[in-house]
Amino acid sequence: MKQLFIFYLFLFPFYLQSQTNDSVQIRALYDFNLTEGNCYENLRSLCKDIGHRLSGSNSAENAVKWAELLMKNTNLDTVYLQQVLVPYWERGNLEKVYWKNSKGQTSFLNCSALGGSVGTNGILKGEVIEINNWAQLKDFGRSEIEGKIVFLNRVMNPTFISTGNAYGSCVDQRHLGASRAAEFGAIGVIVRSMSLKYDKNPHTGSMTYLDSNNRIPAAAISTKDAHDLSLAIKDNELVELAMELSCLQHEDVISYNVIGEIKGTELPEEIILVGGHLDSWDIGEGAHDDGAGVVQSLQVLETFKKLELQPKRTLRCVMYMNEENGNRGGKHYAEMVRKSGEKHLFALESDRGGFTPRGFSIDGTKLQLEYLQSFKKLFEPYQIHLFNKGYSGVDIGPLKDGKLCLVGLVPDSQRYFDFHHSKADVFENVHKRELELGASAISSIVYLVDKYGLPESESIKK
Amino acid sequence: MKQLFIFYLFLFPFYLQSQTNDSVQIRALYDFNLTEGNCYENLRSLCKDIGHRLSGSNSAENAVKWAELLMKNTNLDTVYLQQVLVPYWERGNLEKVYWKNSKGQTSFLNCSALGGSVGTNGILKGEVIEINNWAQLKDFGRSEIEGKIVFLNRVMNPTFISTGNAYGSCVDQRHLGASRAAEFGAIGVIVRSMSLKYDKNPHTGSMTYLDSNNRIPAAAISTKDAHDLSLAIKDNELVELAMELSCLQHEDVISYNVIGEIKGTELPEEIILVGGHLDSWDIGEGAHDDGAGVVQSLQVLETFKKLELQPKRTLRCVMYMNEENGNRGGKHYAEMVRKSGEKHLFALESDRGGFTPRGFSIDGTKLQLEYLQSFKKLFEPYQIHLFNKGYSGVDIGPLKDGKLCLVGLVPDSQRYFDFHHSKADVFENVHKRELELGASAISSIVYLVDKYGLPESESIKK
Repeated sequence: MKQLFIFYLFLFPFYLQSQTNDSVQIRALYDFNLTEGNCYENLRSLCKDIGHRLSGSNSAENAVKWAELLMKNTNLDTVYLQQVLVPYWERGNLEKVYWKNSKGQTSFLNCSALGGSVGTNGILKGEVIEINNWAQLKDFGRSEIEGKIVFLNRVMNPTFISTGNAYGSCVDQRHLGASRAAEFGAIGVIVRSMSLKYDKNPHTGSMTYLDSNNRIPAAAISTKDAHDLSLAIKDNELVELAMELSCLQHEDVISYNVIGEIKGTELPEEIILVGGHLDSWDIGEGAHDDGAGVVQSLQVLETFKKLELQPKRTLRCVMYMNEENGNRGGKHYAEMVRKSGEKHLFALESDRGGFTPRGFSIDGTKLQLEYLQSFKKLFEPYQIHLFNKGYSGVDIGPLKDGKLCLVGLVPDSQRYFDFHHSKADVFENVHKRELELGASAISSIVYLVDKYGLPESESIKK
Repeated sequence: MKQLFIFYLFLFPFYLQSQTNDSVQIRALYDFNLTEGNCYENLRSLCKDIGHRLSGSNSAENAVKWAELLMKNTNLDTVYLQQVLVPYWERGNLEKVYWKNSKGQTSFLNCSALGGSVGTNGILKGEVIEINNWAQLKDFGRSEIEGKIVFLNRVMNPTFISTGNAYGSCVDQRHLGASRAAEFGAIGVIVRSMSLKYDKNPHTGSMTYLDSNNRIPAAAISTKDAHDLSLAIKDNELVELAMELSCLQHEDVISYNVIGEIKGTELPEEIILVGGHLDSWDIGEGAHDDGAGVVQSLQVLETFKKLELQPKRTLRCVMYMNEENGNRGGKHYAEMVRKSGEKHLFALESDRGGFTPRGFSIDGTKLQLEYLQSFKKLFEPYQIHLFNKGYSGVDIGPLKDGKLCLVGLVPDSQRYFDFHHSKADVFENVHKRELELGASAISSIVYLVDKYGLPESESIKK
């Protein structure tokens, strides 16, 4: 009851007095982003001037400098780097998966080593066994699997409407495949790419070794190659499969989260965070994942600057390092927040691609959820309709403390996994207006949260 | 009051008894379309085996045969052609727009004659005058315009969220530009392409001559060329512009609407129509416009067949001829309906591209609108959220009689005008899942309307 009271206390003034003003202001935010916003040009520069930027690489360091300079040129009040130790894995030059038939003919597969995989140290050869689910792995058991290369060919479920859910229900195959297969004596693993599209692009991504003493090489192959390989196995064509990977895990290196702020005029100690991750996989250009998110996040602050909107609270843009293979940036940032006692009110991450925004996935209290849902009507003209409880994002996740409201931007998901972690994730596959509409949606919700605060925190002051 | 009574009479049984069953059935429709539907393969065939198909062309006739055969192979109960006389305009081989500077250097522009334009009958040369709105045309007047080529350079407004609205508020420039400029003595017209994308693709489209005795040639140029040309004019670089178009308007020829049906089991005399248009412009492949709509429409009937759903009412798929430059198919079909007294209950058109579906645009009575909105909850899991009053489609428009409920499928609009009427409108730019989700959405609403009928017609029988 008390909660409801607080809820209405903050909700009614909003509805009664300000809805028209807010409509006008949100329209202005959209108009600015759709006509004068720089996020598309910034994304072009990140993709083309820097390129892909895996943690630890020279390119990632260039990206840090690029981001710092860009923030400074945006005339933010404060711009600084937050040092963080990150893993440094390298793919190396050699990356081959191929099989031979009984006539000795060789077929090469489009492949990509999984991030974190060990190398093969020469040519790794073996018979292949296809596995479509974990139960099968147990059923075959050590007697069937030992000494072989395991081919994990579970298909992403096309009947999920959100492709993120299809990914979430399948990605354990990539992440844990090598570990689980190794338990049964496998010598290597190849994994069907995490994509709903039938094509020749292999998709890399993170994997982990549960037992550091039993690490076997792992590579993704394209969905088409997975289909063809499966047929070849069924037709008993395949005699032997070979893998050659030259991956190397180096010592951790120093890198940085890049942070910029506009200081709040009334409640500067309260932080509203918008962010994405600056690092990307080492193929493609990390355009959707997550160039889009970082340029949109900066666009929010630029929009406030250019429109001369003085936020009450401090707006902070964080470009995180190392989301892809460790989340060291996100973890370290949260640790620093806890140590310093900084008060975060709201954190929003954009890391699901630069597609037409559909809404927000809200990880907060029931009251926060209902409060944000009360803004829904304001977003209707912009076809933003999802205000559901759900997951926010990897980078901001470690901030979760039961009070802070975490939010993920939810764009249309249909095309995301066509590009994700592959060479197709390039600037040309991001649509200018869709990217700008995402920046507009984030700017709008940040505007409202800055203006009205959020319930169930100490900080609800209008 | 009576209306409300009727409304609840049909609404409540739906909510109380059938919502769960309907959820299950709609899930089955989506599952089928996302795993076994043929619409993507059918679109490939239409685009690659037939290609573009402007009314009157050999290719359009091939498309008619293709569609008839496909419907027969889908085992529809009835498949037939409806003869219709269509215009036959040909672009011809020659299509050039270029300008010269004071040094005699020539710059060629990426251009496309507008559909229906007369040819230039040799080289048409003249000074150029840039016009950005109709008021300017009047302000300049005959004294400034006579004997010149008018360059219509109004930009599509990027602040519209629906690009269809941006198009609608700008397309008079293309459609009427030649007529209006000719009133002031212009000798030719070039028009900035109807696209929000900045690129080198010219976009053709229909135009009309209000005065058949004063017909001047008209061509579109790409948005980038329009931008560059405008700069050249402002910088006084441009001395003279030339146009060479070899377009020809032939006599009308015979063509066909292609129609297929599944006969209703209980109310076969009541028709539920789904359709799109088979013709396309003569560049690109007419993939989004409107290959997507015709394959989705057929997919609805195929889904009923394959899932062995016996519709109560007759489901009719109409692939209309000549939407692009005359709408003869749509007009003739409506005329035949009036003559025969056929009872149409519901007509849905898909002609806004094969993108992620967002909802429905409903042109019906208030009661029909509210009734369809009562289904909204069932569509929530599929992220279908728009159930607004609005325009349906060009082909089904002539059926409007104040009773029949007309509906347009509303997909995400951001990318449509990147492709529309240009060489970029090819199969490769249609996304399999997005196309299938559209077919699923149409199948679902057709399923509900067939099952429950619609208010404010004689035909509400469960």
